[in-house]
Amino acid sequence: MQNEKINIKKKFDKFNDHWSPKIIAELNDYQFKVAKIKGEFVWHKHEKTDEAFFVIDGKMEIEFRDKKILLEKGDLYVVPRGTDHKPYSKGECKIMLIEPKGVINTGSVVNNFTKQKEDWV
Amino acid sequence: MQNEKINIKKKFDKFNDHWSPKIIAELNDYQFKVAKIKGEFVWHKHEKTDEAFFVIDGKMEIEFRDKKILLEKGDLYVVPRGTDHKPYSKGECKIMLIEPKGVINTGSVVNNFTKQKEDWV
Repeated sequence: MQNEKINIKKKFDKFNDHWSPKIIAELNDYQFKVAKIKGEFVWHKHEKTDEAFFVIDGKMEIEFRDKKILLEKGDLYVVPRGTDHKPYSKGECKIMLIEPKGVINTGSVVNNFTKQKEDWV
Repeated sequence: MQNEKINIKKKFDKFNDHWSPKIIAELNDYQFKVAKIKGEFVWHKHEKTDEAFFVIDGKMEIEFRDKKILLEKGDLYVVPRGTDHKPYSKGECKIMLIEPKGVINTGSVVNNFTKQKEDWV
């Protein structure tokens, strides 16, 4: 088995929808995903896994029940499992997510943002 | 438990040694590491795990038994488990690695490059 190299910026050129993570690579039973985000997401949590956010371009915020953090280009943040959080971005922000296969984007909440099946890009 | 945000560029300002990955974050039983590399590493493989390389700045090559790939800023590459590979960089290159906790940098080979214990930065 041989893999292809993946250029993150080229992947972002291939889609425009917001809050819809696309798989770009797998590492054992984990996946790398890219997403464009803009506006408010929903409060949610992932009961069984941490979730890594890495900001590729732009700025975003993650609101927690007791604080809010600002993430900018080059910032990495790991949301611990079981932690309520709400991502937000005033303008468009490009992010990479790293999490186990099978994680649902809205965690234990199901609503209009929920993607039951995520596509590769 | 709450985590701190991690700025990748600031982490690179904190060390100068080559081929010595430093842990910056944990995601479940996986670790994010940063490394500065320059020159030739050794042929090695990781029998039980894939290994992700993400180029933050600069250029690097990964040589395989049957090909060589060039990775530049913004490129992600997953080396499949059990695959012989030799990283190389003519100039200094800054990379982020993602792999399970406990992975030894030289895989099944032990030599002067081997770091039995990796530090946080």
